[in-house]
Amino acid sequence: MDYKKIKEEIKALDLDAMNKATEYQNKLVKPVGSLGKLEDISIRLSGITGRVHNNIDKKILFLFGADNGVCEEGVSSAPQRFTNMLMKCYATGKGGAINVLTRENNVDLKLIDMGIIGDTTYKNVDNRKLMQGTNNFLKCIAIPAKKVEQAINIGIEYAYYAKQNGYDIIGTGEVGIGNTTTSSACIMACLSVDNADNIVGRGAGLSDDMFENKKQVISRGLMMHKPRTEDSVEIISKVGGLDIAALTGLYLGAAYYRIPIVVDGIISVSAALLADKLNSNVREYLFPSHVSEEPGYKVAAKYLNLESYLHLNMRLGEGTGCPLAMSIIENACAIINNMSTFDDMI
Amino acid sequence: MDYKKIKEEIKALDLDAMNKATEYQNKLVKPVGSLGKLEDISIRLSGITGRVHNNIDKKILFLFGADNGVCEEGVSSAPQRFTNMLMKCYATGKGGAINVLTRENNVDLKLIDMGIIGDTTYKNVDNRKLMQGTNNFLKCIAIPAKKVEQAINIGIEYAYYAKQNGYDIIGTGEVGIGNTTTSSACIMACLSVDNADNIVGRGAGLSDDMFENKKQVISRGLMMHKPRTEDSVEIISKVGGLDIAALTGLYLGAAYYRIPIVVDGIISVSAALLADKLNSNVREYLFPSHVSEEPGYKVAAKYLNLESYLHLNMRLGEGTGCPLAMSIIENACAIINNMSTFDDMI
Repeated sequence: MDYKKIKEEIKALDLDAMNKATEYQNKLVKPVGSLGKLEDISIRLSGITGRVHNNIDKKILFLFGADNGVCEEGVSSAPQRFTNMLMKCYATGKGGAINVLTRENNVDLKLIDMGIIGDTTYKNVDNRKLMQGTNNFLKCIAIPAKKVEQAINIGIEYAYYAKQNGYDIIGTGEVGIGNTTTSSACIMACLSVDNADNIVGRGAGLSDDMFENKKQVISRGLMMHKPRTEDSVEIISKVGGLDIAALTGLYLGAAYYRIPIVVDGIISVSAALLADKLNSNVREYLFPSHVSEEPGYKVAAKYLNLESYLHLNMRLGEGTGCPLAMSIIENACAIINNMSTFDDMI
Repeated sequence: MDYKKIKEEIKALDLDAMNKATEYQNKLVKPVGSLGKLEDISIRLSGITGRVHNNIDKKILFLFGADNGVCEEGVSSAPQRFTNMLMKCYATGKGGAINVLTRENNVDLKLIDMGIIGDTTYKNVDNRKLMQGTNNFLKCIAIPAKKVEQAINIGIEYAYYAKQNGYDIIGTGEVGIGNTTTSSACIMACLSVDNADNIVGRGAGLSDDMFENKKQVISRGLMMHKPRTEDSVEIISKVGGLDIAALTGLYLGAAYYRIPIVVDGIISVSAALLADKLNSNVREYLFPSHVSEEPGYKVAAKYLNLESYLHLNMRLGEGTGCPLAMSIIENACAIINNMSTFDDMI
């Protein structure tokens, strides 16, 4: 499926089903509204599926890996080869944080190489490599527009995979040294933010000097390329990454196939923003997870009306907030499915 | 065990074990500190148990029910008989919110009648009734001091029950129409807050008039009885409830027996405050769950350094935040127990 077609066909939520779910919630043995977001979650799930009662028994998280040429500019505390090394770690299925948290919460994990430097023929990694890392956006555009479109379509393919395999919910993960830089740049471009101080954070942990440099690199990149706010493909092409492009497609596909999708940290939310630019119904399909420590996350989340469930001071990425949020969403399903009504009690 | 003895013997956390847990966390394949509170949780568990690696496989929630004489003053939107009716609903084991959430998260649930009006000889309810509801604190003291002490000791007994039965974590629940009034009064007394506006909320949902009345009832009760800030038993006796007293004992017992204990909403946190007044090591054993919508919750939680994990706009009570928080704590255990170290990856 091509994103140009998909983006035109994403529909709004089913208001009739949402009204029915709201009515049903108000019959349960609790003061109306007293379970807060646990009620809201179930109502929005109804708007997505058209059913009052839903379950999210089958869960999957797609983790896209990609390297970023802008790392040459010293924007990251970790060396670029860590992207490959971390993907290898996840591929062994053992000890990465995302392995642990998906396993603990019974979430399937799919790993996809979109553009990691070097060889990633590890077991369990889908090879969809479009480039050996992107270009340094201070030297030229990061990715040819054609490849951005390809990457978005790949993201849509994985949403289709989720649909075909009966998954009830999708999580969004990524790995890519330098991708807090690219995602911050995308958020600034999307929301026409000029001051990097309001968006850019320290990523995995930068010194003061490196942090200043990171902000300058982003500002210079945006000044140089001037991506148009309304053009998601152009933004990704000029200052984004292949992980962000694939996630953008994943969001579009999830909304198109009407599958709830969980946002993680700043990279994930930047892609949500880019997808929402392509069709503003996308935001209705998004479920937040945790508040990232990155300032850009907060700005983008606010724009998308995402009020995070979890306040855990997490800033790891990989999609680590998603399995935790899925567990909350499961609890929300349990409430509407299993609580008694006042009528039952008489 | 008598609370007077217990409260003298609650020890601080094991700093040596906490240092070892911190060192171990810093070896895991993630930027140091990047899993935020998931790391802090595991480190504090180590301080409680003395072991670096912990599991919370066996979980229990104690739900104490009691009626409050102050309901005569029109402080609640629900009729007093709802306390009994709700306890009956939980006792059937089916459709109360707390039934659903404990079942969903594999938490055992124990129901205890501390002072519910009427008969509660339902299956699964422990009868520890000390009064047929407390007295209206605008007419006399709510509970004789002797009975407060008895109720605190009963709470300690349940912590001992948890210890004896190998539970790894305790949750705190309650039911009692009028108990946002009694708990707000206790918090005001504990923290010497004069202005009810800063503490008192709308409970299950009051009209503007009823809300004003509730604040006045609390202020008048405190003016009349002037409970001493430093005396938890006196505070509970004058303006508290039997559910609050039992929970106070449960916190003391949990800290004494070194079992982590999860705080829920305003009633639960008021008891945590009262227990912490008896021995300020208690706060080290507390784990927050959600931010309650009640303003008094926020004030008490801040005093106890509880930064809630969950922001879900919940205001139901029953202990409903605890099973959700336990799930987060389980994930924190999974991280420290199952993540690879950088050494493993070489």
